[in-house]
Amino acid sequence: MSNGPVLALVGATGAVGTVMIDILNGRESVPWGEIRLIASARSAGKKITVRGEELTVLALAPEVFDGVHVAMFDVPDEISAQWAPIAAERGAVAVDNSGAFRMDPEVPLVVPEVNADKVRQRPRGIIANPNCTTLSMMAAVGALHREFGLTELVVASYQAVSGAGVAGVERLYAELSAVAGKQVGVTAGDVRAALTEAGLSQEDSPFPAPLVLNVVPWAGSLKQDGWSSEELKVRNESRKILGIPGLKVSATCVRVPVVTTHSLAVHAVFEREVTVEQAHKVFAAQPSVVLVDDPAAGVFPTPADVVGGDPTYVGRVRQALDFPNTLDFFVCGDNLRKGAALNTYEIAEALAPEFS
Amino acid sequence: MSNGPVLALVGATGAVGTVMIDILNGRESVPWGEIRLIASARSAGKKITVRGEELTVLALAPEVFDGVHVAMFDVPDEISAQWAPIAAERGAVAVDNSGAFRMDPEVPLVVPEVNADKVRQRPRGIIANPNCTTLSMMAAVGALHREFGLTELVVASYQAVSGAGVAGVERLYAELSAVAGKQVGVTAGDVRAALTEAGLSQEDSPFPAPLVLNVVPWAGSLKQDGWSSEELKVRNESRKILGIPGLKVSATCVRVPVVTTHSLAVHAVFEREVTVEQAHKVFAAQPSVVLVDDPAAGVFPTPADVVGGDPTYVGRVRQALDFPNTLDFFVCGDNLRKGAALNTYEIAEALAPEFS
Repeated sequence: MSNGPVLALVGATGAVGTVMIDILNGRESVPWGEIRLIASARSAGKKITVRGEELTVLALAPEVFDGVHVAMFDVPDEISAQWAPIAAERGAVAVDNSGAFRMDPEVPLVVPEVNADKVRQRPRGIIANPNCTTLSMMAAVGALHREFGLTELVVASYQAVSGAGVAGVERLYAELSAVAGKQVGVTAGDVRAALTEAGLSQEDSPFPAPLVLNVVPWAGSLKQDGWSSEELKVRNESRKILGIPGLKVSATCVRVPVVTTHSLAVHAVFEREVTVEQAHKVFAAQPSVVLVDDPAAGVFPTPADVVGGDPTYVGRVRQALDFPNTLDFFVCGDNLRKGAALNTYEIAEALAPEFS
Repeated sequence: MSNGPVLALVGATGAVGTVMIDILNGRESVPWGEIRLIASARSAGKKITVRGEELTVLALAPEVFDGVHVAMFDVPDEISAQWAPIAAERGAVAVDNSGAFRMDPEVPLVVPEVNADKVRQRPRGIIANPNCTTLSMMAAVGALHREFGLTELVVASYQAVSGAGVAGVERLYAELSAVAGKQVGVTAGDVRAALTEAGLSQEDSPFPAPLVLNVVPWAGSLKQDGWSSEELKVRNESRKILGIPGLKVSATCVRVPVVTTHSLAVHAVFEREVTVEQAHKVFAAQPSVVLVDDPAAGVFPTPADVVGGDPTYVGRVRQALDFPNTLDFFVCGDNLRKGAALNTYEIAEALAPEFS
């Protein structure tokens, strides 16, 4: 490759890493002089073509970070917790997509459209990428906040199974095959009976209940007072990204039988009055937001239609009838792209000029 | 049959009418001296066994209401609009499950656990049964309102396809078979392509977008300022049932690939402070509410688990972290039972003593 900073991708062979390589390949141009693919020892030696060049996956080790300017981590929390500081020690800026550093006060939590300036303030040499559920609405919510001053968010999610990784996707496909053609779901127990009959035990599922022909009001792990980790992430990460420590947030996170793309029903209260027309203008002016809002013509975002796309899709924008300065809207974002790989890459891109 | 008032069921052969006959058959005892089954001329003459007695379905006509004390209507809006007043003229109290009379100021809108006393105030001789989405949360919300004084509701729904009738159920099953074993849903267009390949055109669907591996933020028809009829029903009917004309409500109604049972994520604000423990006590004291709330043990309501049941199932009860006097919770109710047939029947039961 030509001159330019060195980019590393840790977790190159995982679910999000694979989407990251898609994104790298899809870019018209990239600012990098070299790209290094890194994974566990098990995947080392694999050949992957990136932008026309066949690269060999390197095994994760301290010395692979020597000479790296920006290291993107798409790995589980515990791997990031151990290795991002090592990459930073070796001189790289670590951009971490795990939950390990998001609420660390010395680690900025960045959505480039909202707070790109924060990439320069990184005392630990680490920048965190938000949780996919928070990210799915942040470009839209951040754009409105800039204009109208956000004070409250009430959010209900419709989260895709790929948020739980490849195991989540495979489980939903298996459940789908088990019930197809069976006319189940009308009476109690039917779905569970069909899964049992097909040899799918609940204990083997990454989810706590069947997902086919069902919705499951649970994502993540149990935290204080009945809140799930996912719900607290939506609250705490939204506050940090938007820079509103006192933002009032209530979220209910629900898993739905969708493969990829998270959706959220958002009730957002602002300091100033806001009309649907004003909100439409704000969304139209935000390059990473696509407005899909013409219900008279049956036009609104659905996960099946927006999956694979980079933007945040917004529709069903309504001025609340009974709440002042309040909008209700529905937003869809691909949880593997903007919700994970894409935002991480956009952070890396925002860093590149420093090293060019 | 023995002495007792005469009950008529109009729409006895429809989807809700069939559930109504199930309910009649499942009751330990009924207060009725006679039950008359009524349907369109096309279904007249059909034999249906109710409580061990074979009944012949009668064709809808003014004279079938002669001698009837309570006539339950499980038919489309336009049939109710025409025939409920005829039944009332002939001396029956019409209990109507359609949307034709719900917001008529001279027609009470009744959920027996919440406002059973209203059955006596019926100047038109008609009592309305609420919309299924509103009904799915009303027993739970009403119980909390009595104790803590409700002021605001922010609701996001996860609505089953049977809310759109038999055509909705058949469509979801057909879509399910079209995608099963196909590993679609990961990239854009896949779901629509699989449905097209299986010969399922979108125009033939009762829904405006695919529902399998998808969620659709639309139910009902377009009303003012981008709100759907379903969302306005949740607002206006909640106000009327609870007797709070100034109740602040925002609802976003979303269809999900579930056959039967509506779910709602509810954010409820009260006049007085309310803890999770207090809410649990209120729910435990309400016979028609079942508390399913132990997330540490993986216990919360899901539509697949509660379908076929009469109660309203409530779980995920949390005190809002940032909003005073506020609870967030998740509620599931069978939209064909409590959401339709059961509540209608409970209204009829509440009327029976008048005629005994």
